[in-house]
Amino acid sequence: MPEYKAPLQDMAFVLGELTDIDGLAALPPFTEVSRDLAEAVLDEAGKLASSVIAPLNADGDRHGVRLQEDGVVAAPGFRDAYQRYVEGGWGSLQFDPEYGGQGLPFSLAVAVQEMWHAANMSWGLCPLLSQGAVEAIAANADESLKARYLPAMVSGTWSGTMNLTEPQAGSDLAAVKARAVPEGDHFRVTGQKIFITWGDHDMADNIVHLVLARLPDAPEGVKGISLFLVPKYLLNEDGSPGERNDCRAISLEHKIGIHASPTCVMSYGDNGGAVGYLVGKPNQGLACMFTMMNNARLTVGLQGVAVAERACQQAREYCRERVQGVAPGQREAGPIVGHPDVRRMLMTMNALTEAGRALAYVGCAEVDRVHGESDPRRRARHQRRLDLLTPLVKGWCTEMAQEVTSLNVQCHGGMGFIEETGAGQLFRDARILPIYEGTNGIQAMDLVGRKTLRDRGTAMFEMLEEMDAFLAEPHLESVLGSERKALLADAVVAVADATEFLLGASDSATLPGAIAFHYLMLSATVVAAWQMGRAALSVAEDDSPFARRKRHHVHFYLEQILPRYLHHARALRFGDDTLMALPEELL
Amino acid sequence: MPEYKAPLQDMAFVLGELTDIDGLAALPPFTEVSRDLAEAVLDEAGKLASSVIAPLNADGDRHGVRLQEDGVVAAPGFRDAYQRYVEGGWGSLQFDPEYGGQGLPFSLAVAVQEMWHAANMSWGLCPLLSQGAVEAIAANADESLKARYLPAMVSGTWSGTMNLTEPQAGSDLAAVKARAVPEGDHFRVTGQKIFITWGDHDMADNIVHLVLARLPDAPEGVKGISLFLVPKYLLNEDGSPGERNDCRAISLEHKIGIHASPTCVMSYGDNGGAVGYLVGKPNQGLACMFTMMNNARLTVGLQGVAVAERACQQAREYCRERVQGVAPGQREAGPIVGHPDVRRMLMTMNALTEAGRALAYVGCAEVDRVHGESDPRRRARHQRRLDLLTPLVKGWCTEMAQEVTSLNVQCHGGMGFIEETGAGQLFRDARILPIYEGTNGIQAMDLVGRKTLRDRGTAMFEMLEEMDAFLAEPHLESVLGSERKALLADAVVAVADATEFLLGASDSATLPGAIAFHYLMLSATVVAAWQMGRAALSVAEDDSPFARRKRHHVHFYLEQILPRYLHHARALRFGDDTLMALPEELL
Repeated sequence: MPEYKAPLQDMAFVLGELTDIDGLAALPPFTEVSRDLAEAVLDEAGKLASSVIAPLNADGDRHGVRLQEDGVVAAPGFRDAYQRYVEGGWGSLQFDPEYGGQGLPFSLAVAVQEMWHAANMSWGLCPLLSQGAVEAIAANADESLKARYLPAMVSGTWSGTMNLTEPQAGSDLAAVKARAVPEGDHFRVTGQKIFITWGDHDMADNIVHLVLARLPDAPEGVKGISLFLVPKYLLNEDGSPGERNDCRAISLEHKIGIHASPTCVMSYGDNGGAVGYLVGKPNQGLACMFTMMNNARLTVGLQGVAVAERACQQAREYCRERVQGVAPGQREAGPIVGHPDVRRMLMTMNALTEAGRALAYVGCAEVDRVHGESDPRRRARHQRRLDLLTPLVKGWCTEMAQEVTSLNVQCHGGMGFIEETGAGQLFRDARILPIYEGTNGIQAMDLVGRKTLRDRGTAMFEMLEEMDAFLAEPHLESVLGSERKALLADAVVAVADATEFLLGASDSATLPGAIAFHYLMLSATVVAAWQMGRAALSVAEDDSPFARRKRHHVHFYLEQILPRYLHHARALRFGDDTLMALPEELL
Repeated sequence: MPEYKAPLQDMAFVLGELTDIDGLAALPPFTEVSRDLAEAVLDEAGKLASSVIAPLNADGDRHGVRLQEDGVVAAPGFRDAYQRYVEGGWGSLQFDPEYGGQGLPFSLAVAVQEMWHAANMSWGLCPLLSQGAVEAIAANADESLKARYLPAMVSGTWSGTMNLTEPQAGSDLAAVKARAVPEGDHFRVTGQKIFITWGDHDMADNIVHLVLARLPDAPEGVKGISLFLVPKYLLNEDGSPGERNDCRAISLEHKIGIHASPTCVMSYGDNGGAVGYLVGKPNQGLACMFTMMNNARLTVGLQGVAVAERACQQAREYCRERVQGVAPGQREAGPIVGHPDVRRMLMTMNALTEAGRALAYVGCAEVDRVHGESDPRRRARHQRRLDLLTPLVKGWCTEMAQEVTSLNVQCHGGMGFIEETGAGQLFRDARILPIYEGTNGIQAMDLVGRKTLRDRGTAMFEMLEEMDAFLAEPHLESVLGSERKALLADAVVAVADATEFLLGASDSATLPGAIAFHYLMLSATVVAAWQMGRAALSVAEDDSPFARRKRHHVHFYLEQILPRYLHHARALRFGDDTLMALPEELL
C-alpha cells in the first residue's frame, strides 16, 4: 500500500473555515488556540502517523495478535510505536491540565486522531478506547480515584477499555449479568465480558477497565447497572502498578478485519473476584458510560473518515499509474484515471471523504463549545446540536466508509481482490464501523427517538433554520451554480418535510423505527451537503489548486451524491405498513 | 452457518411465471420441456446442494487450497463432491445431446447452478468455467477437436478454464502478449496468464485450458489475438489423457474471499512450448472468447443472486433466534426480528434477492429463445434483448449482492464481524463479483456503447414499449396499489428520458462513460421492478403463504428500492462537465 500522507491542508481548512477554530479563542478554556497552533500540531502528528504508525499496518493485518500464558502480545512494532506516541504527549492533547493534559480543543485532538486511524485503524483503537475511559472517569469518579488513575491514563502510560457487552447483552444492556459485591473500600467484580477491544496487551504499563456490573439487590434492567474501575494491576501505596488483579483475557476473536486489534473475551473474578472501584453513583452506570460513549460515537464516525481517506490515497495512486486501455479522446493506452467511469469512482470517494470530514469535525467542535461556553442558553443550544449531530456523524460517516473502501477495491480491478494490494484490508477493517459503538440501526433510532421526537424536532428545526439562512447568502448561487443551489434548497425542504412526517406519526409504535434509517441517511446527506456548500463559499475568491479541487468536489457532491436524498425522502413517505404487515414466519 | 435450503418454490415460480418455461416447448429443441420437469430437476439438484456441497463451504474458506509439487490440491471434500456432481450428470444439462448433453434449457441449468453457488461459491466456480469452455469450443472449434474434447467436458470428467488476463492485460485484452507458433498439426504456446480460476486442481481427470495468444506476424491490438485449446494432459490415440503438457500453475493468489477456489498464475511453455490447438479462425480469438464470456456474465450475475439468497437465509434464521431488547409494541425482550429496522434490513435483502432472481432468469431465458427460435425476426429481437439484459444482470445482481451480504453482517451485530459466524465469508466471497468477467464499469460501458448507442436505442425502446404495455394492464393498479403503480410508471419514463439524453450526447467522447454506471443502475432497478410487478400480477388471485410473501416483497421493492431510480436519473442529468474538468494532477 502506498505511504499515508496526512491531508494536512484539508484538515486545517475544515478546522479553520468550517469549525472556526480561531473563534474558540473567545472561550475561556481555549484562549491560546488558533489555526496556526492547530497547523503546527497537525504537522507534527502527521510525521508520526506517516513514518512510524502507517508502516505497521499491513504487517499487523497479516500477523495479528497472540494470546500467550501471560497475556496478549501486540503485533510487531506496535509497542514501540505506542511508546513514541506516549513520549510525544499525543494522548493528552484535549485533557484537563490538572491531570497532565494540554487543554487543547477536542476538535483538534480529533483531527490528530484521524491520522492514527488512517495510518493504522487497529493501532488507533487503543488510544480511542483509552480516551473514552479518561472521559468517563474525569466526568464521574471521585477525586481520589481521579488523582490515582487519571495522570497515567492521560499521558497514555496506562491504557483504558470499555466493558459493556456480554453474550446475551449487546445492543440491549438491560441484560447485563456481571456482578459486584462490596468489600471494604472496594468491590469484588465477577462475570464475563465479550468484544473487549484492546482488553489485554503489552503496550502499556497498566490497563484500566471500566466495567458495567450489578450490585447486590440492584433493580433489574438498565436502572440497576453500575460502573466500576477495575485495573489490570492493583496500585501500590506510591501509585505504581503492583499485584495482578483477578481479571484476564481468556480468548481472542477471529475477525473479518482489524486483525491487529485484540478483541478479547475478558473474565473477571475467576479467583474470588476482581478488585474494582465504583465510578459515579450506584445504579447510574449507564449514564456514566454514556459520557464516554457519545464521544466515542463521534470518533468512530471519524474512523470512517480516516479509513476512507486512506482508501482515496491508495486508489488515486493506483489509477494514475495503472495503464490499461485507450481512454476516450486519447490515441494511446494510458493510465486508467483517463476513463470517465474511473474518475467517477475517484471523485465519489473524494467527495464523500471530504464531506464526511466536514460533518465529523463540525460535530466534534460542538463538544468544545459545550465545554467552553458559559452562557447557559448558548451552551444548551450547542448541546442540542451536538446531540443531534452525533448519530449523523457515526451513522453516515461509517456508511460512506463502506462505499469508499469498496470503491477502492473496485478501482484496482482484479488486483483489488488480492490481499497483497492492501485494498482488501481497508475494506475488511472498515466493516466493523457500522456495528460497534451502537449499530447504525441504533444510531437511527437514537436520532428519531431521543434527538427528534423527544424535543418535538426543536434541534432539527433550529439546524434547518441555519441552513435556510445559508441558502439566503447573496453570493451562493454564483458560487454553487443555480441548478446545484436549487437542488440543495429542495433537499433542505425534504428534510423539513420528513421531520414533520415523523412528528406527525409520533404515536405510532413502529413507524419511527421503520423510517429511522432513511431519516438518518436523508438528513446526514443534506447536512453534509450544507457543510460542503459552506466550504465552497469560503474558497469562492481563491484560485489556488486546493481551492479549485475543493470547489470541484463540492460541485460533484451536489450533483452526484446529494440526489440520494430523493430516494430516502420518497421511500420513507411510504411509512411502515408494508414493512410491518407480513407475519414473522413469512419474513 | 445454517444449512442451505434451495428456494425451490421461488425458482419454479420465476421459471414458470416470468420466463414462461412451458412456452419453450413450442420451440423445436425443447419440446419435452415443462414446468413439471423443471421442478423435478430442481428438487434433485437441491438435495445435492444442501447435503453434499453446502456443508463444505465454511471449511473450504478456512482451509483454502495448496500448491504442491505436482499441482493444486482442492479443499477437503471438494473432490468427492465434484465426483457426485459428475455422476449425477449435472454438468451436462444444457448441452447438445450429440456430445452427451441433455438438451435442457440454459435457463433451467442456470437455476440449478444458482444452488451450487449458494451452497459453495468457490466450488461452483469450477463448473461455471467448464461450462463456458464447452460453449466456446462447441461454437468455434472444428469437428475433430469437438469430438475429442467435448464429451468428457460435457460430462464434467474434464474441467475447463479461461485464460485471458496477463499482468499488463486485464480489462484491455489488446495488450495480450502470450504467443503461439505453428508446429505440424498444432501450435506451441508460451506465456504467463494470471487470475486463472481453477487453473489447476485434482478434482477432474484433465483440464482443458482456453488460452488467448498471438500468432507470429499477428497484427497488434485485439485483432491479432487467437484462441487455443491447451490440455493439461495430451490425449492418447484412444482419447484418454496421457503425457503431461508443458503448462502448470506456478503460484496461487491470496484473496479477500473464495479461498477454496484456486486462482492460479499459469505458466505456458517453460520447456519449449505447450501443445495447443487453434479454436476458430486465426486472429478471431476475442470473438470466440466472447461466446463464452457473454453467458459467463449472466452466470456471474446469477452468483450474485445465489450468495444473496444464502445471506437472506442466514440473516432470517439469526434474527428470529437472537433475543435482544424489547421491540416496539411488546412488553418483554424478544427476537430482534420484531424491531422495525431489523425487518427493514431483512425485507431489503429478500426484495433485492427475489428481484435479482427474476432479472437473471428472464435474461437467461433469452439464451434459450435465441437458440430455439427459427423465425429470423423474432430471433433477432431475442438476441437484442439478450444483449441488452446481459450487462444489467451482471452489473445489478452483483452490486445488490454487495448490499445483501453486507446487510447480513449488519443483522448479526458484533457477531457478524466474527469469522466463525459465516456472514463474513459471504461478504468476502461476494466482493469478487463486481470485478470478474468484466468489471461493472466495463458492463456499464458495454450497455451505453454496444447495447444502446450502437443501435440508437432500438433494443432499449423495444423493452420500454413492453413495459408501457405492462403498465396498461387493466388490473395492475388494484394489484400494485395506485401510489406504487404511479411510481413505477414515472420510473419507466425516467429510463426513456435518460436514454434520449444519452443518445443526444452520442458525439461526446466522455459523457457516455461519465453517466454509464448511473444508466446501468437506473435501467436495471426499473427492469427488475417491472419483473417484480409481473410477479405480483401472476399471484394476484392467490392467497397462499408463498403468494402473500411474494406480494409483500413486490410492494416493498416498489416502495423502498425503486425510488433509487430518482437518484440515478437526477445525477446523470448533470452530465460530465464537473467530472472531466478537474486536471488529472488535482484528482
